[in-house]
Amino acid sequence: MEVVYRCSRCGFTAETSTWLWKCPRCGGPLDVVIKGLELTLGERRDMWKFSSVIPVKPLIGLGEGFTPLVRAGFLRGNTYMKLEYLNPTGSFKDRGSAVAVSKAVELGIKSVIEDSSGNAGISVAAYAAAAGIRARVYVPRDAPEGKKSLIRSLGAELIEAPSRVEAGRIAIESVKNGEAYLGHTWNPWFLQGTKTMAYELLDQLGHAPDAIVLPVSAGTLLLGLWIGFNELRSTGLISKVPRLYAVQAQGFASLYERIHGDTAGESTRIADALRVSNPPRLEQMVDAITGSGGDALVITDDEILDAWRTLLRRGFIVEPSSAIALSGYLRLLNDNYLNEDCETVIVLTGNGLKYIDIMGKI
Amino acid sequence: MEVVYRCSRCGFTAETSTWLWKCPRCGGPLDVVIKGLELTLGERRDMWKFSSVIPVKPLIGLGEGFTPLVRAGFLRGNTYMKLEYLNPTGSFKDRGSAVAVSKAVELGIKSVIEDSSGNAGISVAAYAAAAGIRARVYVPRDAPEGKKSLIRSLGAELIEAPSRVEAGRIAIESVKNGEAYLGHTWNPWFLQGTKTMAYELLDQLGHAPDAIVLPVSAGTLLLGLWIGFNELRSTGLISKVPRLYAVQAQGFASLYERIHGDTAGESTRIADALRVSNPPRLEQMVDAITGSGGDALVITDDEILDAWRTLLRRGFIVEPSSAIALSGYLRLLNDNYLNEDCETVIVLTGNGLKYIDIMGKI
Repeated sequence: MEVVYRCSRCGFTAETSTWLWKCPRCGGPLDVVIKGLELTLGERRDMWKFSSVIPVKPLIGLGEGFTPLVRAGFLRGNTYMKLEYLNPTGSFKDRGSAVAVSKAVELGIKSVIEDSSGNAGISVAAYAAAAGIRARVYVPRDAPEGKKSLIRSLGAELIEAPSRVEAGRIAIESVKNGEAYLGHTWNPWFLQGTKTMAYELLDQLGHAPDAIVLPVSAGTLLLGLWIGFNELRSTGLISKVPRLYAVQAQGFASLYERIHGDTAGESTRIADALRVSNPPRLEQMVDAITGSGGDALVITDDEILDAWRTLLRRGFIVEPSSAIALSGYLRLLNDNYLNEDCETVIVLTGNGLKYIDIMGKI
Repeated sequence: MEVVYRCSRCGFTAETSTWLWKCPRCGGPLDVVIKGLELTLGERRDMWKFSSVIPVKPLIGLGEGFTPLVRAGFLRGNTYMKLEYLNPTGSFKDRGSAVAVSKAVELGIKSVIEDSSGNAGISVAAYAAAAGIRARVYVPRDAPEGKKSLIRSLGAELIEAPSRVEAGRIAIESVKNGEAYLGHTWNPWFLQGTKTMAYELLDQLGHAPDAIVLPVSAGTLLLGLWIGFNELRSTGLISKVPRLYAVQAQGFASLYERIHGDTAGESTRIADALRVSNPPRLEQMVDAITGSGGDALVITDDEILDAWRTLLRRGFIVEPSSAIALSGYLRLLNDNYLNEDCETVIVLTGNGLKYIDIMGKI
């Protein structure tokens, strides 16, 4: 396997023996590109079953991936739920953190910096803890109190910023010599973790589904799926990438707006995990949507609350930001973008136990 | 497969075509006994991989079981962590609920009654929700607020009792015609779910470990492991049942006291999931400990807090009641009941995300 950094904007390439988080030439987001990809399945029961296509050694692991795929019998149609909320820290982010932190450890890095609306901060804090290295996490001041407490309990340094945008800016400015900016919205290794979900879905279903509906903010899962399914197509294991449907929260719908034009309406108050205003990989996200034949949708808080209640009343303990995927699915079904024959996977990304303190108050 | 109820006290047997929760003759706890057991591995990626030895059809499932087994590199010795907290509702209880609720559905039952210190109530509420049947859950008034809210959010009726003991008493008295008492501390089907952990450990390790250290209150996991490993021994797949070490919280150590005599000291304030005073299956629990060559231990809140912090600082997001297993392991190592060559599994039973509201306050 030959691995290089390649800039998604200007095509600049570099070796992966140093830590880069953006293109040293044009400042664009980097990809990690693998030549000579060959899939062989391993024995492990976590996402490292797909080690043969992950460009780092599995140095740090907490049991990430291999999450259940459950048929959603209560919905019309041929539909599955992918229970990513059962990852070790309660979100799909663990796939990315496991790879990015393993790479950091490989390079001898002792301190990583992250900015996050909450879940990625928890995830990076946990994997840094597992690795025995330091983590400093910048979050918006209005992130859920529980998520902030957990980041601290995991031993990370927590710094609150006035907003999500400011958290990102201050995090990047803060990076000192010997520290590495791991910011998942930029990090190219992170996507090499999230891509494992594509391999896992193929492994679980025996084929690729027709469509996947998922919550999207900075696009780390969307792009992981796009990379993974394209790798599978290039190696001939599938013939077609599933249509990817990105479901966004009102007020944080840059992908939708880039495709369909401006939106109005009050910004979400409950989908706190989806509040990213300026995803650095927006152009790549557009490619994933248009290239897969999918689309982007915007959902209101009322619809999210409805979907959240529905999922809880079926035993699926997810966070509100994840319930948005069900809202999106129902809208797509209603508007005939999906029909009942279409094999669809709804990705439930985050664990509702993180909201146990506000349950019953909403 | 031939399946009967058999009383663990008087030997009374009955067919399993009706719902029984205790012996109709002597009032003792019932077992579900299988004749003609034959293990064949299925294709599923959850605990129903072991369907061939589970005496109900997999009617209701939320992705239970198949939890990660992670090597605990930060501990001395040849030690693994079994991450049962990554079950669908955040505890090992889901193994039992999936089987017990599936059996209830098979028998056409529309309403189940549970009493619980919290986690089992959440689990039964979620599986009843998945099954589309009613659940009524009795908990002690001082159960964590978050756990109580979640039970309600899952659609169950929640009733608060003055204490854990009263919750059990009132629950049993409340059962009306057409309802079924599912109380997991009594339920024989529940143990047919928790026993799958024994099969899973064999499947994951390729052999049985030397010892297992686990939190114990009503003994549903302890007895599940004892049943499962004995089945495996009887079919010749293993030669020896692992030593089972039951770790109990101060003030709720009936198993320890039954073996070693009375204890003193303040009752636990933080191991809320372990507060069962009068486990109905105490005699069976004693058999499991002595029969396996293991032991029971009692742990103080200070030790639990230390272990909880240690686990969080390594990325394992567990609840305090689960951290007690690590406290027990360290004590056993220190007292030479375990040595570093001994292959040991520490079971981490409950998800710490349920305590996200009190993290940082303890």
